[in-house]
Amino acid sequence: MTLKLYVERMSQPSRAVLIFCQVNGIEFEEVSIRLAKGQHRTPEFIEINPMKQVPAIVDGRFKLFESHAIMKYLSRAFPGVADHWYPADVYKRAKIDSVLDWHHTHLRRGAGGYVLNTVLAPSLGLPLNPQAAAEALELLTASLDKIESFWLQPNGRFLLGSTQPSIADLSLVCEIMQLKILGKNGERILSPYKKIANWIDDTKEATAPHFHEVHSVLFKVKERLHHKQSAPDLHSKM
Amino acid sequence: MTLKLYVERMSQPSRAVLIFCQVNGIEFEEVSIRLAKGQHRTPEFIEINPMKQVPAIVDGRFKLFESHAIMKYLSRAFPGVADHWYPADVYKRAKIDSVLDWHHTHLRRGAGGYVLNTVLAPSLGLPLNPQAAAEALELLTASLDKIESFWLQPNGRFLLGSTQPSIADLSLVCEIMQLKILGKNGERILSPYKKIANWIDDTKEATAPHFHEVHSVLFKVKERLHHKQSAPDLHSKM
Repeated sequence: MTLKLYVERMSQPSRAVLIFCQVNGIEFEEVSIRLAKGQHRTPEFIEINPMKQVPAIVDGRFKLFESHAIMKYLSRAFPGVADHWYPADVYKRAKIDSVLDWHHTHLRRGAGGYVLNTVLAPSLGLPLNPQAAAEALELLTASLDKIESFWLQPNGRFLLGSTQPSIADLSLVCEIMQLKILGKNGERILSPYKKIANWIDDTKEATAPHFHEVHSVLFKVKERLHHKQSAPDLHSKM
Repeated sequence: MTLKLYVERMSQPSRAVLIFCQVNGIEFEEVSIRLAKGQHRTPEFIEINPMKQVPAIVDGRFKLFESHAIMKYLSRAFPGVADHWYPADVYKRAKIDSVLDWHHTHLRRGAGGYVLNTVLAPSLGLPLNPQAAAEALELLTASLDKIESFWLQPNGRFLLGSTQPSIADLSLVCEIMQLKILGKNGERILSPYKKIANWIDDTKEATAPHFHEVHSVLFKVKERLHHKQSAPDLHSKM
């Protein structure tokens, strides 16, 4: 039975899981769960993931959610996945676990909170919250500082000084990519970080052409938001 | 060279790592890092963990931080650790990873945010924030609901229907234990959750006598806070 991925391409952890499967030649069926249409709250999806979040997978009779846990599982369960994605070496694996745990409470919270509270909230039926946006921006900037100064090391193109990408590179780069929908504001936030800019390019290159294809939805949303800003009297639907 | 644990016993993930080592007979040296005294910001500690957070470990030349990553590492690196703490089975391990990832953005954020913003902030030189406390309480309650209704299953005394505890049980129970310093307010928050109450007792029992010994600091702080509330004209230091 084919692996099923329940994903929303506007969700950064969903994009990471999609790209991971494509790059590693894992066959899957993509089941689109549109958050803006409330498809994560249907009884059918709650059977898959009672937390009502994407991504989630079903592999035979096995159900799993949380993108980091999913990519770790796929790395172990599919023998074709190259070791560098989630190394068997106990020390390398521990460091990747550490980056991913750090990600939850720092970069993810900062980037996700900022994008949600500056542009995305209305499409999900939520109000924009400037105070929450300001707090998220502070955490986002502190997190980018740490990636630039600590997680990216002088040797190696990827996190932790690696020469090949891991699931941590994919997860963190997909998170940062959502800043692209902010247009000039996103560019301004990212502009001080030269190592991060190179690392994003290296991750794109290592996962081409899938990275670009999976992110194409982001660029469409960016254009639509930009169009709305230039012509505020026109209605557009997400 | 002995494993070094850099911990603050007032920190719930520090307590989880301490208990984990004690229960599994892992020899270690405890290095106390008092957050209230700013010991996490010294140049010596920043060499250990540039994120300035506890717990962190040094095992020979290997440094690691983030409590979940630490417990996973210790489970793999120390052969004496029983399999049930972090099972080698790919499916069981994936489910434990999923609980732990969920924990970061739900229970931890809710419980930690609530305790910080209702009682602990002043001892760390921060103001109490009632708005943040209200938001954290909402997330905490939603998280406890999910543990009671989903993560704790009818069969098995521990998370995911297991008959023996995993690192997820230890991590989540230590998180919940901090509510004890809230006194009657903490009891009120936990009172609707019968399965959670039994699960906490089962986790205490499975990790006795270490669980109680490591948590004794919490009960002292609770007494001190209670004493302050009864006699607000007396000064007390943390």
